[in-house]
Amino acid sequence: MKHIYEGKTKSVYKMDDGTVTLLFKDDVTCANGVFDPGANHTGIKIEGSGLAGLKISKFFFEKFNEKGYPTHYLSCNFEDKSMNVVPVTTFGKGLEVICRTKATGSFMKRYGDYATEGQNLDYFVEMTFKDDDREDPSVSEDALITLGVLTKAEYAQIKDMTVKMTKTVEEELAKLDLVIFDIKFEFGRSEKGIILIDEVSGGNMRVYQNGKILMPIDLSNIVLK
Amino acid sequence: MKHIYEGKTKSVYKMDDGTVTLLFKDDVTCANGVFDPGANHTGIKIEGSGLAGLKISKFFFEKFNEKGYPTHYLSCNFEDKSMNVVPVTTFGKGLEVICRTKATGSFMKRYGDYATEGQNLDYFVEMTFKDDDREDPSVSEDALITLGVLTKAEYAQIKDMTVKMTKTVEEELAKLDLVIFDIKFEFGRSEKGIILIDEVSGGNMRVYQNGKILMPIDLSNIVLK
Repeated sequence: MKHIYEGKTKSVYKMDDGTVTLLFKDDVTCANGVFDPGANHTGIKIEGSGLAGLKISKFFFEKFNEKGYPTHYLSCNFEDKSMNVVPVTTFGKGLEVICRTKATGSFMKRYGDYATEGQNLDYFVEMTFKDDDREDPSVSEDALITLGVLTKAEYAQIKDMTVKMTKTVEEELAKLDLVIFDIKFEFGRSEKGIILIDEVSGGNMRVYQNGKILMPIDLSNIVLK
Repeated sequence: MKHIYEGKTKSVYKMDDGTVTLLFKDDVTCANGVFDPGANHTGIKIEGSGLAGLKISKFFFEKFNEKGYPTHYLSCNFEDKSMNVVPVTTFGKGLEVICRTKATGSFMKRYGDYATEGQNLDYFVEMTFKDDDREDPSVSEDALITLGVLTKAEYAQIKDMTVKMTKTVEEELAKLDLVIFDIKFEFGRSEKGIILIDEVSGGNMRVYQNGKILMPIDLSNIVLK
């Protein structure tokens, strides 16, 4: 296996059989020392958070597979905190797709004049480029098409997949009296078309229990208990 | 008449007959002391720029009226640097609509990884909220609908009007060997539907002559000579 990419929360390796392996690290994205799934840097290290992220990702990937939603997930190994996945090419240098069921975080920072914290949003989808230097700029459907990153049909497909997957996560969490506010997905192009990539864990979503946000590792513990 | 709003480059008065009068000031928007139509503050005062902005606005509003594109323009008076216009309500606290024919300015700041300075864009339209505190956040079609600021039909109508008006400005400037890179419009809701408001001047667009950007007052002088 060959190291091909060092992410903030995962190391990425190309395997000899053409698949890819992700090693989950214990780093958590945060802003000003506080967990923030929208933040662009890590600064908190929490023992066990990598394994917790892997386990909950497996849980949600298997739910998506049951529903027939295409993902990169092949298998995982808890001992070495690794997930084996399908190889993909990213959209541009990486595209993040956010789905919001309630207004919070960067949505409020931008649109605070037009929304109230926690107000319902109808599976609102928006996309941002992964670009730390430019603070992950928001990018509209028209901009993605103009820049040659997505076709109109691909945009619609990704938006549709995002809403369906968000609803699946929301349903699972609702069984545990947990409320999802927003979630961030990534997609890639595989030989079989567009598929969900990356992880699906507490590090990528804001989930509340009794009005309080859950840390990623606590979310994993509740979902997987 | 009653003073109702003090803008960066214009003072706004409500008239006894229900119309509105805009008084054009000599302030120019800039960033770091350099003219920037996308900037959020004024800092350069150029003697005569208010009148120049009024005159070129009259020129373009009359072109739009000839083509049947609805605007707020009624008449203007060069002596007191005023324009009489139709009253409107704004979209939210003000919505700016940008049309780009070439990549520059904030487009490059955000999407510099995916575009090259000056590359052609096919009348790319994007919208931002007027919100100095939040640095005029970009707002997508879906966000505008979600926030209740525009309906889907209104978004399409404004986008269509914007492209048509940009093409009209581009055609007029091309006659003078001038090249428009981008232009910012504002629209409002009047009794007769959605109409173009504000001004249409060098302060709202980037125009190049022989590869060099023109200051607003120079653009007026060239167009109106």
